Amino acid sequence: MDLNKPYLLFLGDAADPLAAKVAQGIKTWRPEYCVGQLRLENCYADVGLDDISIEQAVDAGAKTLVIGVANRGGVISERWLSVLLDALQAGMDIASGLHNKLTDIPELVDCAARYNRTLFDVRYPTQSYPVATGKKRTGKRLLTVGTDCSVGKMYTSLAIEQEMKRHNIDADFRATGQTGILITGSGVSVDCVVADFIAGAIETITPDSTPDHWDVIEGQGSLFHASFAGVTMGLIHGSQPDALVLCHEPTRTHMRGLPDYPLPDIVKCMKVNLEAAKLTNPSAEFVGVSVNTSGLEEQDAYGYMEKLETQIGLPVVDPFRQGVARIVDYMVTSL
Amino acid sequence: MDLNKPYLLFLGDAADPLAAKVAQGIKTWRPEYCVGQLRLENCYADVGLDDISIEQAVDAGAKTLVIGVANRGGVISERWLSVLLDALQAGMDIASGLHNKLTDIPELVDCAARYNRTLFDVRYPTQSYPVATGKKRTGKRLLTVGTDCSVGKMYTSLAIEQEMKRHNIDADFRATGQTGILITGSGVSVDCVVADFIAGAIETITPDSTPDHWDVIEGQGSLFHASFAGVTMGLIHGSQPDALVLCHEPTRTHMRGLPDYPLPDIVKCMKVNLEAAKLTNPSAEFVGVSVNTSGLEEQDAYGYMEKLETQIGLPVVDPFRQGVARIVDYMVTSL
Repeated sequence: MDLNKPYLLFLGDAADPLAAKVAQGIKTWRPEYCVGQLRLENCYADVGLDDISIEQAVDAGAKTLVIGVANRGGVISERWLSVLLDALQAGMDIASGLHNKLTDIPELVDCAARYNRTLFDVRYPTQSYPVATGKKRTGKRLLTVGTDCSVGKMYTSLAIEQEMKRHNIDADFRATGQTGILITGSGVSVDCVVADFIAGAIETITPDSTPDHWDVIEGQGSLFHASFAGVTMGLIHGSQPDALVLCHEPTRTHMRGLPDYPLPDIVKCMKVNLEAAKLTNPSAEFVGVSVNTSGLEEQDAYGYMEKLETQIGLPVVDPFRQGVARIVDYMVTSL
Repeated sequence: MDLNKPYLLFLGDAADPLAAKVAQGIKTWRPEYCVGQLRLENCYADVGLDDISIEQAVDAGAKTLVIGVANRGGVISERWLSVLLDALQAGMDIASGLHNKLTDIPELVDCAARYNRTLFDVRYPTQSYPVATGKKRTGKRLLTVGTDCSVGKMYTSLAIEQEMKRHNIDADFRATGQTGILITGSGVSVDCVVADFIAGAIETITPDSTPDHWDVIEGQGSLFHASFAGVTMGLIHGSQPDALVLCHEPTRTHMRGLPDYPLPDIVKCMKVNLEAAKLTNPSAEFVGVSVNTSGLEEQDAYGYMEKLETQIGLPVVDPFRQGVARIVDYMVTSL
């Protein structure tokens, strides 16, 4: 799965800025991939790019229209459809991370075939992956893991990639979910892979590399999430991580979607993740904790992080408030 | 996935008895499902049933021809095909656990449609499963886990189901792999489920039941297998096991298929499995260890098991040499 760049970001009729968070993510982390945004009437999101038409996008070199917005009620509306057909006719591919597949819409499939364009449903793997071999690969790998789902693993991973590049470290973010794939143009939506091939898919997207190269692998789920821990376990083993970063959201009262399940203790969570990681990389170690403190006032946030840092003896940062430089600094000096 | 019974077991041109181990498993564990065996020329397996024809099988009430043999080189030969077509025409369904799908063979698909019969490729789930909820279910559950793949988890689970029934315990074996599904007629091949739904698939096949009922769930893989641990983790969480039985093969020099990976220490393996199980069932505990000692002389086998039993303080048995009565006895008195 490799998307052609640059992109036209389609914001559609986004109900609010949050509905366009995929487009926002692409704009934040890969502004160089974006030629502009296309918004319909009643669009209440704006990621700060020029508003342009399909024609202007093509003139600016756009190769792919990326659906950067969640569709309402899971339905591709007529209004969207006419824009998508125009994009195909104008010579662009279309990429989507939506649950509903583009390739299930006959008009789009026919039009894409006629104009020799490709529809990318990035949530659904189209290639088959091998069974993991567990063989040691060259190069270095960092993996984000979490106390829970949706605690900032993708954001943290992208921030670490960016910070590594600032340190002149050769680094690549490796996407394991649909938003990450749309941001970077490649990866695997690992929770949609057949169970036998979870670790093998991750081995495939983080292959051998040069000794100083770092793959920064986006984590998924949590070993303590009763619905998804299998995905997380395979992801850890396939990653063979040299470095782990724990991601955490301190205001959760229970595991996401599981009202009866409390969050794990942070120290225990790190211990269990490290134990799992050591199976395929005995020298794995944690290099920091990334806390999403958006639910806390600034003073409480810093207080929380200081206390945790004292407890675990590793850098604890909020990547949005402070960046991840302290984690990368620690990693560079300790590994 | 529910196969119609009874079965005609197709042994084809099995190269040796091992090639027909699926048929042997059905005959061993569910003889009441079998009306006979069908063998072609040059069949070197015999599971001890009457050799009968398609017509005799139908007269005896057979509803499904089960392919109880591995096909050579993954190809369904012309000789096989003509038997399978005859079975469909005579009114039987066909069930297969082979990697190659029956439903990929146009002649079979056409014939099944014409005679209104069903082709069951039991390795490939046809239903979709929900995301696991982790909600406590009624009834009791036992799960077999392993130090490695292919160490006797299915055999042990079936032996425990049989022994529980001898104790007048209401028990059902729950199959999680293709051979187990063919033996019992239902279940899910969990390693072929989409990763997000591993635990949810297991919750589905072991639903709420009466307080004294035991589901005996067939384990898969190992938390210490670098290729497949994700499957195992989801299986453990979805099972919410009250009781765990560890399965082990003491002569392995490395993890199956992974020459660089040693077997885990048994005590550590039990600890990690128990920790995982306690996430969804805090009262989970081990009730025994099942050792496949087929690679040891009798004296060495018993010596090995005695030593291990002293070390861990739980019944250690070889289910083939001794049966699993001591594990079930222990479970009944301790849980």
